[in-house]
Amino acid sequence: MTELKDIKKTLAKFSQDREWEQFHSPKNLAMALSVEVAEIVEHFQWLTEDESKILPIEKRQAIAEEIADTQMYLLLLAEKLKVDIIDSVNKKIEKNGAKYPIETAKGSAKKHTE
Amino acid sequence: MTELKDIKKTLAKFSQDREWEQFHSPKNLAMALSVEVAEIVEHFQWLTEDESKILPIEKRQAIAEEIADTQMYLLLLAEKLKVDIIDSVNKKIEKNGAKYPIETAKGSAKKHTE
Amino acid sequence: MTELKDIKKTLAKFSQDREWEQFHSPKNLAMALSVEVAEIVEHFQWLTEDESKILPIEKRQAIAEEIADTQMYLLLLAEKLKVDIIDSVNKKIEKNGAKYPIETAKGSAKKHTE
Amino acid sequence: MTELKDIKKTLAKFSQDREWEQFHSPKNLAMALSVEVAEIVEHFQWLTEDESKILPIEKRQAIAEEIADTQMYLLLLAEKLKVDIIDSVNKKIEKNGAKYPIETAKGSAKKHTE
Repeated sequence: MTELKDIKKTLAKFSQDREWEQFHSPKNLAMALSVEVAEIVEHFQWLTEDESKILPIEKRQAIAEEIADTQMYLLLLAEKLKVDIIDSVNKKIEKNGAKYPIETAKGSAKKHTE
Repeated sequence: MTELKDIKKTLAKFSQDREWEQFHSPKNLAMALSVEVAEIVEHFQWLTEDESKILPIEKRQAIAEEIADTQMYLLLLAEKLKVDIIDSVNKKIEKNGAKYPIETAKGSAKKHTE
Repeated sequence: MTELKDIKKTLAKFSQDREWEQFHSPKNLAMALSVEVAEIVEHFQWLTEDESKILPIEKRQAIAEEIADTQMYLLLLAEKLKVDIIDSVNKKIEKNGAKYPIETAKGSAKKHTE
Repeated sequence: MTELKDIKKTLAKFSQDREWEQFHSPKNLAMALSVEVAEIVEHFQWLTEDESKILPIEKRQAIAEEIADTQMYLLLLAEKLKVDIIDSVNKKIEKNGAKYPIETAKGSAKKHTE
């Protein structure tokens, strides 16, 4: 599979085959999503920013798995809410472009510090 | 844009144009990711599971924006770690298939309760 | 120990004895706090609200440990920021009382749904 | 109020007066707790560790409020589960003392990096 939409179908079938749909309310999927993200955060909590930029290969692979889990729950949640992720991202990038024009945002870290 | 790889490029350019790269260590991106996910969770915290399945349109649109933010930080983080999300998801689905065979996982909620 | 202030001292000594202070920047403690809370959330993610009210004893004990971890990181963080938790809670309760007067908040779930 | 147990009673009354108990299942309180912690994390996400150690007074006060919110939800959750926080923390500190003896933990960051 090379695109999100193929993965979405595979994930839906995976859950249906195992009768896991009953657990997958949007509320529960949001919780599961937050738990997976915390497993990413856990890898970084005691590292300096610099250390986080040069991870050993095993750590990078472990985080890649947590990123995959996060992506899967995000897709499952979006699917339940009939939200098209790609479409939503496109709209948000456009909105952010208007909100943070290059001229004023450049060099300034206002978004990041306020 | 219709695929993650296009979005990835657009996001990279967006940050570069605004000189925001300096803030985007993997450690910081993991934190930002967790904050965005909490904004999804916030919408669901006081709803029942049933209510979470039939959201009013404005709420659904608000959540779609948070899903977009989450997807963007996940892409930025993956990019910094040189992790291919699609590839990682494919591998994880295969792994999960072996870990939870349909025959034993079906009808059982072991994964979900243990 | 029977009060937060005693625990605070014990925790400070615990970290000093092990030379862990170097890892305990407020930024890192905030991350660790979020990871511990996710370990609480993990216990509840696939349960219904009703199930979450009648947990088996072993599950309740496991969650008690995560609650303890959360409390400890919250104390460590407050200590680093020179924030008096008890004092801050008292002030926040007073503020919330003014924000949500009984007459208007009662029966309404406005805080919870908006 | 100067101790957790007084605050616990005040919080219980606060919720009862406003008929908010109906929303306070352990599952929902765990979610609310995670959302409050994310509001702490948000303050730190783009700061360096050093910056997080020297916060301006207004930022420190804003974080103090989020710490108060976190403490309140933690107390409410513990109350619902009939968990005594002080008792649980005492037990956990003892357990951690056995798990990380000073001689071996000192100078080593094993807990923090593995």
